[in-house]
Amino acid sequence: MSSNEKRGEAVDLSHHLSKVGQARQTSPLKGLHKYMGKPGLISLAGGLPNAAYFPFSSVSGNILAPDSFPLETDSRESSLSWFWRLFSRTDKERTSTFTVGKYSKHPGDLDLENGLQYGLATGQPKLNEIIREFVGKVFQPAYSNWTTLIHTGNTDAWSKTVQTILNPGDGLIVSEWTYPSAMAGAQPLGIIPVPIGMDSEGMSSISLRQTLSEWDESARGTPRPHVLYTVPIGQNPTGTTMGIRRKKEIYDICVEYGQPFFSPTFQDIIIVEDDPYYFLQQGKYIPKSDRVVDSATDDEAFIASLAPSYLKIDYQGRVIRLDTFSKTVCPGSRLGWFTCNPMFAERLERTAETSSQAPSGFTQIYVASLLLKWQYEGYLRWLKALRLQYKQRRDYFLDCFADEFHLQKKISSEGYTAGTHLYHASLKPRRSFVPLGEKDNAYSKPLFSFVPPSSGMFLWIELHLEEHPAFSSLGYKALEMKLWTEIAEAGVLFAPGAMFFAIPVEDDTLGYGHFRISFSNSTVSLLQKKLILV
Amino acid sequence: MSSNEKRGEAVDLSHHLSKVGQARQTSPLKGLHKYMGKPGLISLAGGLPNAAYFPFSSVSGNILAPDSFPLETDSRESSLSWFWRLFSRTDKERTSTFTVGKYSKHPGDLDLENGLQYGLATGQPKLNEIIREFVGKVFQPAYSNWTTLIHTGNTDAWSKTVQTILNPGDGLIVSEWTYPSAMAGAQPLGIIPVPIGMDSEGMSSISLRQTLSEWDESARGTPRPHVLYTVPIGQNPTGTTMGIRRKKEIYDICVEYGQPFFSPTFQDIIIVEDDPYYFLQQGKYIPKSDRVVDSATDDEAFIASLAPSYLKIDYQGRVIRLDTFSKTVCPGSRLGWFTCNPMFAERLERTAETSSQAPSGFTQIYVASLLLKWQYEGYLRWLKALRLQYKQRRDYFLDCFADEFHLQKKISSEGYTAGTHLYHASLKPRRSFVPLGEKDNAYSKPLFSFVPPSSGMFLWIELHLEEHPAFSSLGYKALEMKLWTEIAEAGVLFAPGAMFFAIPVEDDTLGYGHFRISFSNSTVSLLQKKLILV
Repeated sequence: MSSNEKRGEAVDLSHHLSKVGQARQTSPLKGLHKYMGKPGLISLAGGLPNAAYFPFSSVSGNILAPDSFPLETDSRESSLSWFWRLFSRTDKERTSTFTVGKYSKHPGDLDLENGLQYGLATGQPKLNEIIREFVGKVFQPAYSNWTTLIHTGNTDAWSKTVQTILNPGDGLIVSEWTYPSAMAGAQPLGIIPVPIGMDSEGMSSISLRQTLSEWDESARGTPRPHVLYTVPIGQNPTGTTMGIRRKKEIYDICVEYGQPFFSPTFQDIIIVEDDPYYFLQQGKYIPKSDRVVDSATDDEAFIASLAPSYLKIDYQGRVIRLDTFSKTVCPGSRLGWFTCNPMFAERLERTAETSSQAPSGFTQIYVASLLLKWQYEGYLRWLKALRLQYKQRRDYFLDCFADEFHLQKKISSEGYTAGTHLYHASLKPRRSFVPLGEKDNAYSKPLFSFVPPSSGMFLWIELHLEEHPAFSSLGYKALEMKLWTEIAEAGVLFAPGAMFFAIPVEDDTLGYGHFRISFSNSTVSLLQKKLILV
Repeated sequence: MSSNEKRGEAVDLSHHLSKVGQARQTSPLKGLHKYMGKPGLISLAGGLPNAAYFPFSSVSGNILAPDSFPLETDSRESSLSWFWRLFSRTDKERTSTFTVGKYSKHPGDLDLENGLQYGLATGQPKLNEIIREFVGKVFQPAYSNWTTLIHTGNTDAWSKTVQTILNPGDGLIVSEWTYPSAMAGAQPLGIIPVPIGMDSEGMSSISLRQTLSEWDESARGTPRPHVLYTVPIGQNPTGTTMGIRRKKEIYDICVEYGQPFFSPTFQDIIIVEDDPYYFLQQGKYIPKSDRVVDSATDDEAFIASLAPSYLKIDYQGRVIRLDTFSKTVCPGSRLGWFTCNPMFAERLERTAETSSQAPSGFTQIYVASLLLKWQYEGYLRWLKALRLQYKQRRDYFLDCFADEFHLQKKISSEGYTAGTHLYHASLKPRRSFVPLGEKDNAYSKPLFSFVPPSSGMFLWIELHLEEHPAFSSLGYKALEMKLWTEIAEAGVLFAPGAMFFAIPVEDDTLGYGHFRISFSNSTVSLLQKKLILV
């Protein structure tokens, strides 16, 4: 099914609206909507304070130049040089300043009078224009009447989505390892996670089809799920990247399950694409010795080099995409946006009206000012370099592992690592704390294994705990936690693997322990002191 | 029952937690909480971007001096002078500047590195300190282990409260006229509003007791309600102010209904005090001719002059108080705080973790910087003057009515106006558009009536529509809407009265039409042009 040829409108998906909860939300503004914002109108309707009483007369920001970070990087010689550059604060940053005053000189300009006033849940028009341009150019949705709606970060966006399209007790399709905060956000509604097997691109389309086709409502206690939650890029926690081919396979299954011919109970599937790491696509890890210089690309080549969003194949409007500024600007912005069909957008806007309302005015002013200053081209320039910064961080992190451990690279044939290079890490004999006299093969036994992440912020490692003396008595879950606690007490915090299981593990004698380790944030001076503890 | 004598701890109110929804929320952070923020810890657990990649190197603000508005005001001579002062922008504002850089020089200072990073839902420690000091000094809670938790504005706070302590289908005690957005926020859960009669102080304790004591679960289809929602100061829409005596009566009823002796089904009542207008207590309206100069008071006298919060009598910890910076700083801050017992606060924090997370970092930086600059004393100085500014706006607004209409003041003996001065407004014979030759008594018939608001931002007027030619065919609801629409089309937007009924009116032949008119925002130049249309 070629989905990109036609650009029709979204199909009617209103049967997905929750029968309880926020999907039934009405606007508290009712008939007032029609008049709000009309030029010349004197509104004595709302409880609006006069802007004269806003105690801020202006706000300013110093922003980095969009080309603050390089596009050509060479991490072959010294993995540290870029780190030092980052933290030697005597470096001259190239910045420019913007100021937003209380009253604007030109109509439509940003000002505090409007920016810090109550506003519609749809937010600042300027910000919406920028976002819309960006989505159109970068994600290129496959249907015509897609829309965007700002939100207060993907966590809140997911919470609103859950309340809009899920009923209590519904099943929710997820990867077998998945983002725990998303599961926690759905749990109060009694949502039942339905884990799908994974391979090296994340969710397996084969496993998805099998789960759906074999669905037995009476055995499962819930109808076949109609919502799929996915973090396709920088899959959380495994760091995999899902390509367009896999996405098309999954998308087509989600459409197919709407065909009565195939499906005894008519139920198609909505895809919620939670994609915070989209612009942190780092590509394949290449060991230091084989690495080449990254070279600059033009905008089109850059966009083409990224694994496309589900939006690009979403010819029916069944994808709710969650974007955030948390990873590309800053998490404190608590700002992002939905891209979805207008019917879902209208429901999500109603939900926002009686909860978060519009995102913070300060946030909107700062992010809009930044993007107005940078323009689309500047923001793209920033994103191009950001990806390389995180690539260098990932490479440095794995290089450290290569220095500290004996790494053996093997093609894996099992489970989520199938078809990829799996690295087994074992002790190097030179390590001084290994007791003398032990046999050489003690060093060749892998302590842990990993697939180098290709996107995102995390390394997901499998711990080989089977030969630990306490394994038979504790099982791997308790042993993982014991090890995690000891490392945390020693001053390094990982995320324990058990957090990421979509449903709790029952058999504690099979499987591996896991840690999710972030390479996104720590500085090298801290790492140098403590990484050896790993 | 004297509630202020002892300052014990909150009683156990865990039976109020919702049996569904957010009250069952668990923390996605689980065991990690224990280690987060520990000095010297290297956290590789979260998906935190490095602050080097935040594109803001500093943010600044220009803030007004806390004494920008006067404490001594004289509105006898010209109601307009203060208006002109406000909008003559050549006036020198007294401002000071603050700047927050990316990295702080002193530990604990505000910086962007932490301020724009992911943070706990509890927010910036500095901000919490200021808020805690403020609550202790101004609201003086009557139990010892009260706590505060920041939130993203009262609308979101109410939405989280609903999800934490209400079950689908529960009743909710409200005033018969109430804030429609709060009703809309509760509606998706299928909450049933239970309207209570009102008098000149808002919710009537007599009517409350009657409703509770006569509660018939089978006839009502829901158990006796266990949550009461109230806007006690600047009651929305009526603008009344509830004094401490009424609050104690209502509080004691809410405690009493927890006593098995009185109540066949053991159920006490939680009070949700939504109090955005607390600092806009303007006191009694005094006609221009009798008005005297407002004179400055010291901080203690100022606090004592305000009708106390429910917190001051809440010796059991059964009040969830919602405060907001929307009316005292700016709505765009999307910032406020809960004050409640630690058990509810913990549940509300869990809910925030999987939805809004912490409020915007920009907001927290700006509001914290403002309050750190002003300090407690400065903020109190600001609030003292703010109340007077809104007092002048209210007085000016009502003075205009006195100029345009013939106002007759009568002591009312009925309904929510009982015991207060009710103003009846009728046409003045001099109005040129009144056809000549009509009888004099045409002018004495009131067109509308109102009680001058004593707090808040709104005037609530009753429309006397009975003699309108269309009244018998349309009924007052449709006629109210027709009039509202005509005024809106002419360029002045009121809030139509029907929005504020807790439950829709069924009998359309009794009662009055209403408008809620805001006096908080419009500028006099706009008003002068259009007010005559009213």
